[in-house]
Amino acid sequence: MTGHVPGTQREIRRRNLSRVLYAVAGQGPCSRAAVAARLGLTRTAVSTLVEELLRAGLLTEQGPTPPGGGPGRPGTALALPDRGPCGLGAEIGVDHLAVCAVDPRGRVRASTRIVSDGRDSAPEPVLARLRELVDDVAVRAREEGLVPAGLAVAVPGLVARGTTTVVRAPNLGWHGIDLAPALTGAGTAPGNEREGLPLAVDNEANLGAVAELWLDHTRVPRDFVHVSAEIGIGAAVVLDGELLRGTRGFAGELGHVPVHPQGPRCACGGRGCLEQYAGESAVLRAAGLTADGDRAAALTALAERAARGEVRVRSALEDAGTALGIALAGTVSLLDPRAVVLGGALARFAPWLRPALERELAERTAAPEAAVELLVSQLGGEGPLLGAAHAAVRVVLDDPLSYVASRVG
Amino acid sequence: MTGHVPGTQREIRRRNLSRVLYAVAGQGPCSRAAVAARLGLTRTAVSTLVEELLRAGLLTEQGPTPPGGGPGRPGTALALPDRGPCGLGAEIGVDHLAVCAVDPRGRVRASTRIVSDGRDSAPEPVLARLRELVDDVAVRAREEGLVPAGLAVAVPGLVARGTTTVVRAPNLGWHGIDLAPALTGAGTAPGNEREGLPLAVDNEANLGAVAELWLDHTRVPRDFVHVSAEIGIGAAVVLDGELLRGTRGFAGELGHVPVHPQGPRCACGGRGCLEQYAGESAVLRAAGLTADGDRAAALTALAERAARGEVRVRSALEDAGTALGIALAGTVSLLDPRAVVLGGALARFAPWLRPALERELAERTAAPEAAVELLVSQLGGEGPLLGAAHAAVRVVLDDPLSYVASRVG
Repeated sequence: MTGHVPGTQREIRRRNLSRVLYAVAGQGPCSRAAVAARLGLTRTAVSTLVEELLRAGLLTEQGPTPPGGGPGRPGTALALPDRGPCGLGAEIGVDHLAVCAVDPRGRVRASTRIVSDGRDSAPEPVLARLRELVDDVAVRAREEGLVPAGLAVAVPGLVARGTTTVVRAPNLGWHGIDLAPALTGAGTAPGNEREGLPLAVDNEANLGAVAELWLDHTRVPRDFVHVSAEIGIGAAVVLDGELLRGTRGFAGELGHVPVHPQGPRCACGGRGCLEQYAGESAVLRAAGLTADGDRAAALTALAERAARGEVRVRSALEDAGTALGIALAGTVSLLDPRAVVLGGALARFAPWLRPALERELAERTAAPEAAVELLVSQLGGEGPLLGAAHAAVRVVLDDPLSYVASRVG
Repeated sequence: MTGHVPGTQREIRRRNLSRVLYAVAGQGPCSRAAVAARLGLTRTAVSTLVEELLRAGLLTEQGPTPPGGGPGRPGTALALPDRGPCGLGAEIGVDHLAVCAVDPRGRVRASTRIVSDGRDSAPEPVLARLRELVDDVAVRAREEGLVPAGLAVAVPGLVARGTTTVVRAPNLGWHGIDLAPALTGAGTAPGNEREGLPLAVDNEANLGAVAELWLDHTRVPRDFVHVSAEIGIGAAVVLDGELLRGTRGFAGELGHVPVHPQGPRCACGGRGCLEQYAGESAVLRAAGLTADGDRAAALTALAERAARGEVRVRSALEDAGTALGIALAGTVSLLDPRAVVLGGALARFAPWLRPALERELAERTAAPEAAVELLVSQLGGEGPLLGAAHAAVRVVLDDPLSYVASRVG
């Protein structure tokens, strides 16, 4: 063999261990033979990989395989464990903090959520409070036999690619805040704080998008644009199952796509950005409501009045749908995705946004052959938090060898 | 080794042969030792790969390595050949047809270009004429000791991903035209027509973009948006050195991004698309010129009057630059590229488009941290044709084993 690259064998083993875990995750409890058939590997190869994963506690065996569980002789069924590593997800919202723990099967095993006014907040007390919540959820996860393997944090702002630094979160008023100093060591067992968990920080729209991809994959395709709203409007672009991050990590700023170029001045410096028409404040204002006080109450009032058919509220949401449709029509022309997914607060208001949005998309997308599907998220506002926790647990499924090494170390 | 995938060894050899060719292409004539150092392979491994490539005629040896040509003892220098495989590129323009042949060193060795009014043309005579031109260039390439290895065709329209079918080319009036029946066998040696060359068909903006990436890589980064214009406006998105094609192959339709959503009706069905403000017809009309007759003459007049400072012409180009800036600001917010490259006819008019375009980009891009670089193509209108020919020759460099097999067969 020419040009042998050192580490290739180990890489293949690492990848195959991961493929076995995802095969079991994808089809539920199943036999070794079913895994082998699904992956196109020999049964001998799969047995070796499975033994290693059983030893590491990353697979478990359950009674006999159910009938029809796969070709070959019956055997014990393989399943992902409900003990062992778990992922911690956290969310810094504009008016809340939330944390949850997800086990390797993808089930939420502990969670907490508090009201927290983050608008123009100092980062230190918010992060100290978040750390307490992470510690609390980690303790409860450990009581369930789980071991936190990583922490991922969703933030309503731009995160520099490959870092833990929030470059800009306008609604929090945060600029250039590195979350690592405040969160390193959070979620670890008492006495182990210095061995911090792997920490990832990402934009909430990005984590909401991967949640759609991972948790609703029978409905959501592998090429889509995910649009979400809390106070601002964010989007994430998923291409062939991978997030498009952009050169600096700032891709997906749909809220600042110009809709009416001579429109009102936006905080970003531009004019007539989508947020000026479909952002939460703009919609509440157009509907005759205010967002100065309790934001959750204002949104609930908006939804109730829309459901009752109040003309001014319906009209405000229709205008927002039109603006979303204009911005998304441009996005579809540029990216040719298979679907657009409305997530976050947009999912809640989809019934009233959708007609105008679909009309604009249909009229404006350049290729009638390229009609895009419009889906409404079934995760809604829970998407970013679930995406964060799943991202943290998938680090283990992606790279089981490192997890094993970390437990030995 | 568990889970051995058959073919992996062959895949590694294929990839390493290709890496050796690109290493020589990238640094010019160089020693085996220099290739080994560049690729991180052993000299023994590189020698084996080089012998195979020499036998296949994909590398040649030239006198001794120049001093400083790399570490280790002096030896003969390796170079890509100026004989052997070549790529044929063809372009179907709105008012021209062009063909060229590029050798493995990337030099144009034969080319031809004719005026051809393609507007609302029947495909059959255009494709028959193109086939004659391809045959003519192939004969001349063969006289130079080259063997056509593939044909790639640039078209001003949408091509269904992975096919040779032009789904829609509005300025030609073509819909659903498969180029394969007309072009299969073009460029082959007489008597060999049934063994057609590999044929690829792609959008002209896509091929213009890869030409920038491959031919101007010291200046153009690996993440950029390439905007070009002939009659319409097209764009191509390159992410990490790869074209973004979109689910159906229709990504990059910047010309139909809404700029003024209530603006004039566009042929695509939308309103106020970028083409209505920065497309060739719109600009010529605003400048008081007409594109009904000789398009090339009209564009030359536009450039001359702009250079003379005619107010109406300058104003028309400034308005086009503003519209481009609005559409590109949205694009930059969505994709966070490192650069925007103005190509095709836009390169020629860049001096007058650029001030307004840069002003809009600066005001409207959401992240001031993410300022994008604006580059003007040095290939201009030649980009798509060169991109096509290079794409055809790179098929051989990407997969030398298949080339060797095809010559044996």
